[in-house]
Amino acid sequence: MNPASNNKIVKRYKIEAKTGYGFRVEKGQRLRIVDLEGEQVADLVCFARHDPHEYLSSGRSINYAEKIYLSGGDVLYSNRSNPMLTIETDQVGRHDFLFAPCSQKMFAIVYDIHEPHPNCLENLTQSLKPFGISEDQIPIPFNVFMNAQVSEDGRINILPPLSKAGDYIEFRAEMDLMVAVSACSALRCNNFSWGPIGIEIRENEQR
Amino acid sequence: MNPASNNKIVKRYKIEAKTGYGFRVEKGQRLRIVDLEGEQVADLVCFARHDPHEYLSSGRSINYAEKIYLSGGDVLYSNRSNPMLTIETDQVGRHDFLFAPCSQKMFAIVYDIHEPHPNCLENLTQSLKPFGISEDQIPIPFNVFMNAQVSEDGRINILPPLSKAGDYIEFRAEMDLMVAVSACSALRCNNFSWGPIGIEIRENEQR
Repeated sequence: MNPASNNKIVKRYKIEAKTGYGFRVEKGQRLRIVDLEGEQVADLVCFARHDPHEYLSSGRSINYAEKIYLSGGDVLYSNRSNPMLTIETDQVGRHDFLFAPCSQKMFAIVYDIHEPHPNCLENLTQSLKPFGISEDQIPIPFNVFMNAQVSEDGRINILPPLSKAGDYIEFRAEMDLMVAVSACSALRCNNFSWGPIGIEIRENEQR
Repeated sequence: MNPASNNKIVKRYKIEAKTGYGFRVEKGQRLRIVDLEGEQVADLVCFARHDPHEYLSSGRSINYAEKIYLSGGDVLYSNRSNPMLTIETDQVGRHDFLFAPCSQKMFAIVYDIHEPHPNCLENLTQSLKPFGISEDQIPIPFNVFMNAQVSEDGRINILPPLSKAGDYIEFRAEMDLMVAVSACSALRCNNFSWGPIGIEIRENEQR
């Protein structure tokens, strides 16, 4: 279940609370996202290195998984129906794939907050700018550790993440990727406090 | 509940089974989508006329509605958090906003169909080509009449549409739009047969 977990770490990075980070991942490498202090959501988006018009697609991934909560063994697909990331290890088991990244306008509409507020859309945009990707290209993220519970009638209840300090999810990259991750600064989905997110990239020993 | 239903029809079009259609809708006009023969899904996408990089966003709409099944009174938002379409009348009450449009690759992955098959992604792409919009820009559609039932554990069960012959949904356009609609050619979501879709655009008398 966890074949790559002891492989050599080629990159380790701490995303401070309410900020984002953009980086490259090679095909076959493992990407681990760690909730360092617990109950912290991490918005993840990715793009094909060969062409940023190929991007993470919630709609394709949900279609092929035939479920809305993806976990160990499930595959995150691109808009062109190619596998981008496979979830190899999931210590938490609950993530969201429905919500757009929080944004300045979201804080105004949902929370009536009108002064500037750190937000995932801006974090992801800034993190992806060096790769030539613009705000409008940012797709619906895989919202790691976000616990949006959908009831039988379709209503959504945003609950605290199930992740405790040190819990992680680990993906295998199925193609060369540009990735951005944001330590989410929304209120309810992080149980009204904000922490950092750890990033670890492990080499694929079979390469 | 149905203030525009008797307004003058400025456009009426029949989308034949397994085909698509692209058209303009002005702010304030009403767009009615009719299931002419029953149990037929219609994939709907739209783009802001002033800038096609502003497009329909399931992730924003679901966020602001706080539910996955949108119906009368709910608003379909753009990726920039602006209202695009408001559902004014809904005679069916069950539509999907999770699935990407069916595509040639989807037929291969889900149904093991490898010969060319009519599909919504191609229909939408062809319908939007005159507006300068390309395949990779097509977002997750509002899948009108599609009945994808999500259970408490997140699993999705695709059931026949609840729409009977003549049933419709009517939207008010909240901005000038480019719209494309495809009469879906997937198997399960249309209960294994395919029919046409009616389009009606009504003038806003208050203009």
